[in-house]
Amino acid sequence: MKKIKDLQTLIDSNVLPKRLALAVSQDAHSLEAVNKAFLAGLIDPVLVGSKVETLKIAQELNLDFSGATFIDEIYPSKAVETAVKLVNEKKADFLMKGNIPTPALLKAVLNKEWGLRTGNLLSHFALFETENYHKLIAVTDVAMNIAPNLKDKIGIINNAVTFMYKLGIYLPKVAIIAAIETVNENMQATLDAAMLSIMNKRGQINDCVIDGPLAFDNAISVESASHKKIKSEVAGDADLLIMPNIEAGNVLYKSLVWFAKAKVASVILGASSPIVLTSRSDSEECKFDSILLATRG
Amino acid sequence: MKKIKDLQTLIDSNVLPKRLALAVSQDAHSLEAVNKAFLAGLIDPVLVGSKVETLKIAQELNLDFSGATFIDEIYPSKAVETAVKLVNEKKADFLMKGNIPTPALLKAVLNKEWGLRTGNLLSHFALFETENYHKLIAVTDVAMNIAPNLKDKIGIINNAVTFMYKLGIYLPKVAIIAAIETVNENMQATLDAAMLSIMNKRGQINDCVIDGPLAFDNAISVESASHKKIKSEVAGDADLLIMPNIEAGNVLYKSLVWFAKAKVASVILGASSPIVLTSRSDSEECKFDSILLATRG
Repeated sequence: MKKIKDLQTLIDSNVLPKRLALAVSQDAHSLEAVNKAFLAGLIDPVLVGSKVETLKIAQELNLDFSGATFIDEIYPSKAVETAVKLVNEKKADFLMKGNIPTPALLKAVLNKEWGLRTGNLLSHFALFETENYHKLIAVTDVAMNIAPNLKDKIGIINNAVTFMYKLGIYLPKVAIIAAIETVNENMQATLDAAMLSIMNKRGQINDCVIDGPLAFDNAISVESASHKKIKSEVAGDADLLIMPNIEAGNVLYKSLVWFAKAKVASVILGASSPIVLTSRSDSEECKFDSILLATRG
Repeated sequence: MKKIKDLQTLIDSNVLPKRLALAVSQDAHSLEAVNKAFLAGLIDPVLVGSKVETLKIAQELNLDFSGATFIDEIYPSKAVETAVKLVNEKKADFLMKGNIPTPALLKAVLNKEWGLRTGNLLSHFALFETENYHKLIAVTDVAMNIAPNLKDKIGIINNAVTFMYKLGIYLPKVAIIAAIETVNENMQATLDAAMLSIMNKRGQINDCVIDGPLAFDNAISVESASHKKIKSEVAGDADLLIMPNIEAGNVLYKSLVWFAKAKVASVILGASSPIVLTSRSDSEECKFDSILLATRG
């Protein structure tokens, strides 16, 4: 796939629309994208929050939600709980963050009684479309795990690989990113990369081809990899980049969006279904594409 | 300044050409850029290495070095030592890496008897030109210091700020980059950023305006900073980005060059004069621009 919009071609009309539970729905920033996905037939929204306020915002933005389900919960904390429980009880397919801080949403997701835990680590997964690469490229984790250790990185890889199969990206090529392509005992990122590569060869991490350490340019450019005489199935053709820490991930995400003018869709993985957790500063298109991405989960 | 080429307008014809000592000059990858800078009147090259091999490469590449100085040293280790000593003894103005591994060059630079030590930390300084920013933007450290601590970061900032004055960038706006713009006790990058900001306010780090923590987008976009309600002289208008670790720096460097098609020039700072240390995979233009940048030191 070359474009995020191509995900729509994967859609099986028998399984759509998916039921989206919007947690704390009185939220101009998400309602517009939710409405667009609703009108496109991708989702059946369940708007959980203050019905009066939600309808007021919808009217101001000229959004038609007739046919959508409203669950009136004026208290945000109660609305989040209700939305999460809808997914837990299979009355909704996936969750989207509305007008509530991220920590409050994640706390509800991780609730032991009625949350969406699976035993897996939660991780952030971003899918980029850029003119200067020959296919879509996924990057993880740029927003959830601060300084993942080896075990965390295995969880992050497994979350991403499992989800990529649902996107039709089979046996993804996974590049473990570091600042250099050699193993350096003073750089933990390169040590973890070597370990992950061998764990993949030994069948401890499956359904993907892992290579690392690779510097960013080695991972995405055949020319750069050949300059360094790197022989690798992954180099120059990576489907998925595993970032060594949240700073490197976040800077890559932001530089692709702001300086390389890339398009991006993202979800949180590791719960029972993908969670859409866009931020205020994301574009309308990014929010819509993130909903589209989550419908594949 | 908007373009790296604009550095040429700063040139004082009284101080040029600068004398460049190329360490181990039998090197196709640097000779071409050195020749271009020579013909442009920027430098007076002193080619230290095997004269026979250097002339052979020059002939193959059709480069005219008549008027350049040759110092015939067939042993690479001796050639590096000679080139470094030329700068130490003020017989050359700055050093450029030729056909020798970086660690061998740096070892010579750090030699206590005849090296180029100043007591300052060595750090890498990169200057980017990109269509999607309103001026040149400097980034440090993307290649030398792996996991700089607070003291190292002060050294990195001082190296960069001192050099930026020589580029005509006075009172540079310095953004300390982290994954988020708030102080989080679990994220060392945000703690260091807060400390560096206050050290600047208290006059412990001078000749610049520091603010942080800032995420990459807050640093380079007024729009993004205002979404986050950040009030800052630096946000959206940074001249210099201080990266939290080498992985984040390296990924930013590579993504700007490969995906955002930015132009870049870079030097090593902290020695008695800038050192040009380009890599095989850098473009010819990058190598020339790095020499241009070093002539300002």
